[in-house]
Amino acid sequence: MAVVVSLEGERGKRDRGLDALLSLVKDDLERVNQTILERMHSPVALIPQLASHIIAAGGKRLRPLLTLVSAKMCGYDSVGGRHVKLAACVEFIHTATLLHDDVVDESSLRRGQSSANAVWGNKASVLVGDFLFSRAFELMVEDGSLSVLAILSRASSVIAEGEVLQLITANDTETSESAYLEVIRAKTAALFAAACRVGAVVATRPTVEEMALESYGLNLGIAFQLIDDVLDYSAKQAVLGKAVGDDFREGKITLPVVLAFLRGDDDERTFWRRTLEDLDQGEGDLDRAIGLMTKHGSLAATVERARHYGAIARDALGVFKPGPEKSALIDIVDFCIERAY
Amino acid sequence: MAVVVSLEGERGKRDRGLDALLSLVKDDLERVNQTILERMHSPVALIPQLASHIIAAGGKRLRPLLTLVSAKMCGYDSVGGRHVKLAACVEFIHTATLLHDDVVDESSLRRGQSSANAVWGNKASVLVGDFLFSRAFELMVEDGSLSVLAILSRASSVIAEGEVLQLITANDTETSESAYLEVIRAKTAALFAAACRVGAVVATRPTVEEMALESYGLNLGIAFQLIDDVLDYSAKQAVLGKAVGDDFREGKITLPVVLAFLRGDDDERTFWRRTLEDLDQGEGDLDRAIGLMTKHGSLAATVERARHYGAIARDALGVFKPGPEKSALIDIVDFCIERAY
Repeated sequence: MAVVVSLEGERGKRDRGLDALLSLVKDDLERVNQTILERMHSPVALIPQLASHIIAAGGKRLRPLLTLVSAKMCGYDSVGGRHVKLAACVEFIHTATLLHDDVVDESSLRRGQSSANAVWGNKASVLVGDFLFSRAFELMVEDGSLSVLAILSRASSVIAEGEVLQLITANDTETSESAYLEVIRAKTAALFAAACRVGAVVATRPTVEEMALESYGLNLGIAFQLIDDVLDYSAKQAVLGKAVGDDFREGKITLPVVLAFLRGDDDERTFWRRTLEDLDQGEGDLDRAIGLMTKHGSLAATVERARHYGAIARDALGVFKPGPEKSALIDIVDFCIERAY
Repeated sequence: MAVVVSLEGERGKRDRGLDALLSLVKDDLERVNQTILERMHSPVALIPQLASHIIAAGGKRLRPLLTLVSAKMCGYDSVGGRHVKLAACVEFIHTATLLHDDVVDESSLRRGQSSANAVWGNKASVLVGDFLFSRAFELMVEDGSLSVLAILSRASSVIAEGEVLQLITANDTETSESAYLEVIRAKTAALFAAACRVGAVVATRPTVEEMALESYGLNLGIAFQLIDDVLDYSAKQAVLGKAVGDDFREGKITLPVVLAFLRGDDDERTFWRRTLEDLDQGEGDLDRAIGLMTKHGSLAATVERARHYGAIARDALGVFKPGPEKSALIDIVDFCIERAY
């Protein structure tokens, strides 16, 4: 049971902030993992083989956790099990996008292991991604709620839109902050928002709570992605055993780059164009990139931006009564941001 | 020439931050004022009478100033005079919305003087507002650029949408931060964005500069409105000779209220519902409201949110070369935010 092992085994220090969340819904998460294992089964052996490779690769299960804790905070009776199915559905959507991302980005590594496309090739990765998407839809349809179907299918198409938008803006050093924000709102934050919102829907809570969880998830998702983008250039990332500079090597335009470019002079912009548009990179270029970001404070500014979205996420939870689930959701905001340090 | 007097006469301390901007485009602004005077003329004497009452009432001309300085920063040759006409057009749109706002809000005061509706009645205010809107469109059509028409007519309809949205959410203490942001983005920030953007359009600058000015204006406009909302509850406002608590008395739901409500307990929410939803207000209620905002830090948090948008506005200008116009636009961001202190 590789999936369970990856969750209870040796987790990185960065995941410790998740412990409170985890302990609140431990049994439910176990059921989510069971559902994932069952539902990725197929008579075509390559499918569970490839899918389990990525699903078991040590993801934090952050998105399904958000669904479980949101549902619990909303008073959903966990015996019903709708939240478990929908949490698995959310993880399937996420995993499908990871598989497709790695193909598009031509990545050979994912969470320190060979990526699925590196092992089984692009075609298999694309198709198993499609399989997981379809399975996610099957799980939603089984749930039977048109509201849930609307929320999650909308999130799926927004994610796809975000990926296409990212493709279009890729390697464009003149990407604006708002264009970048549009991309991460779509490709990352929309699923966080949907994952949280369905928690209120299964508990048949009023619209104001649905929208509060949607806003919580959306803003948490934006903060999460901003910090991810900071970590890619940060020494902290190296301490966590992850490669620094992946985004740089791929020419990905993230906010630390956008701000360093905007704040830089002509000479510096020539550097950014050579390295990120022409992908003409040599020794010392990553160090220079990090040096310019430090000089212009663009990493710190990105963390500041993340704090803003984190603050909105926290305040959005104000409509809920105090309790351990609410506290855990608030802590997760801090966890997402403070992991930058 | 009441208009000119109102600009060069005794201006409040809060306007000092505008001086750099003002001195850069002094002559052009004089031409804008001339255009405004000429174009609000009508054989129907009530129209210039009512219009000059509000136009001369001591507005900061912030929006037309943004058009003039943006055009100058983009290298527009001011002899052409398109920027002057369009700046006047922007001020007409702004003034029209003020006239209609005062009718909708049933305000009897505007900038310390009797509002137009208080003097001439609601019907005249609505119709002169329509006249100014139409004149704004005439000015745009005279300019002859379809791009400019598209930008400013879109801004006009977004403003109207924002006003309707505000009407719908009025007196609803459960308004979310994102719903509130949607309102101010539409009713305030859209015109700031358009005012700046046309500066790049008349100078036929590339899209990236148009969008940078749009983003600058949009984020500046959001920050500006957030601080306006803070000032309505702040002692600073009293020092400036303006009434404190207008929004409270009208039951307007602004971010300081949204956050105090979200961060408050049941007892406090009962207070907010009574005062802002039922408009059942008594002596000491405004003080209690300000007390709760202080207790929960909701005024400080709103200023923090404004800083975030201000930072984005500043960074958006990164695509422009250094120069006095760019510096003035950056200073205006600080001015808009620091007037809260």
